[in-house]
Amino acid sequence: MKTPLLILKIGGNVLADDDVLNEVLDWLAGQPQLTILVHGGGRRASELQRVLGHEPKMVNGRRITDEATLEVVTMVYAGLVNKTLVARLQARQCPAIGLSGADGNLIEAHRRVVKDIDYGYAGDIDRVNVSLLQTLLSAGLCPVCCPITHDRRGQLLNTNADTIAASLATALAPHYAVSLQYCFEKAGVLTNPEDETSVIPILKPDLYRQHVEAGAIHSGMIPKLDNAFSALKAGVEEVVVGHQQSLIAQTATRIRLQ
Amino acid sequence: MKTPLLILKIGGNVLADDDVLNEVLDWLAGQPQLTILVHGGGRRASELQRVLGHEPKMVNGRRITDEATLEVVTMVYAGLVNKTLVARLQARQCPAIGLSGADGNLIEAHRRVVKDIDYGYAGDIDRVNVSLLQTLLSAGLCPVCCPITHDRRGQLLNTNADTIAASLATALAPHYAVSLQYCFEKAGVLTNPEDETSVIPILKPDLYRQHVEAGAIHSGMIPKLDNAFSALKAGVEEVVVGHQQSLIAQTATRIRLQ
Repeated sequence: MKTPLLILKIGGNVLADDDVLNEVLDWLAGQPQLTILVHGGGRRASELQRVLGHEPKMVNGRRITDEATLEVVTMVYAGLVNKTLVARLQARQCPAIGLSGADGNLIEAHRRVVKDIDYGYAGDIDRVNVSLLQTLLSAGLCPVCCPITHDRRGQLLNTNADTIAASLATALAPHYAVSLQYCFEKAGVLTNPEDETSVIPILKPDLYRQHVEAGAIHSGMIPKLDNAFSALKAGVEEVVVGHQQSLIAQTATRIRLQ
Repeated sequence: MKTPLLILKIGGNVLADDDVLNEVLDWLAGQPQLTILVHGGGRRASELQRVLGHEPKMVNGRRITDEATLEVVTMVYAGLVNKTLVARLQARQCPAIGLSGADGNLIEAHRRVVKDIDYGYAGDIDRVNVSLLQTLLSAGLCPVCCPITHDRRGQLLNTNADTIAASLATALAPHYAVSLQYCFEKAGVLTNPEDETSVIPILKPDLYRQHVEAGAIHSGMIPKLDNAFSALKAGVEEVVVGHQQSLIAQTATRIRLQ
């Protein structure tokens, strides 16, 4: 039997609300199994960009990362957000250790190849350092990962946090029974986006296709769910999507292959 | 025989000059022994404070750290400077891992007690997590430590980087043969601050007292050297002070008890 491992990704809505964040951190710190936290920080980064006089540029929900933007996201994600989370987990006796993809060469990436759009210093992941994570988890630590990677030639890169969570889950799946949980603003995958009680309890590929065809699942949820199914195909045991209350109550959507 | 360990502290002059920084990182990455890098970042923090409309306030060379300043130093030290150094060391095949004092509870501190001056969120060190450093060093990693600590109750704190280097050296002295090296802007401890050739090759307590009494060693050097002698008394094997060229050429000042 593989050792259970929870990989929790928290998004902007969690980081923006101290009550929600404290609820999530209390829950995470109380988990008996091994845990990894992955976080974003896009809202704070956009705020700082604006204060510094730069309007954030987003294309398809991804940030165009020029040199000044890379400095901002490195400061906000790897500095402010990461260390704030680590300190708050430590206060809950959770032995958190903050990491970017550069630390211990955790996540090697390459600068995204320019096709139609030049995303600048955006990183697409090549390799996850599984043995580093095994060392840290074996030492009883809880890695807290921010969405900054590097190319191993000295260049930091900005990488989507959802993608980081899925890549860590996939890389660790041969070694741990991984539950990948996305904490976002909805109670789960909804059949009616306006109705928080319309959570799909279990989403399998057939049902997913039906809901996409019917238009009930659309736009931003599609890449998220495609990534979830890819992670399951790569050996991740389960993917769960919901807000903090539904994750804690285990009423969030469980995504399964069968 | 204890295993040799180099703890290198780099100051603002190194971080401000890419040629100097590259020289230091090349040298550090080429060291055969275990290494820990400790860095500051005060100049960049002051620059960002000014861009954000806050004039840095310093008293006795220490930064008054209000809430906004704490955010800035956390972003600059733990984010921008730390991750830039880690990525550049990784590019040199040095397995760097960046840490604040909150990460893995590396450095526990308390908010400085207010006497004459309220330094705000300034942290005085209580405890270094030696076993974490042993775990990381044993795994072949090179810790890169920024001057942010925490109180283990969720509060990040701003701590002087020289003090962090000395505290790490002292805490690790029972386990490693520690050489604590401070890389700053001068070739070493000088008998004439205007003359870079006036480096004292070996500084022992008697000679130190003589130079202080004669006024040749004064102001900022005194707390630095007092800390150096304290570290030696606590079991650190040697303390070396100089700029990158004198450290590399081993012509910097070696501070010894006898």
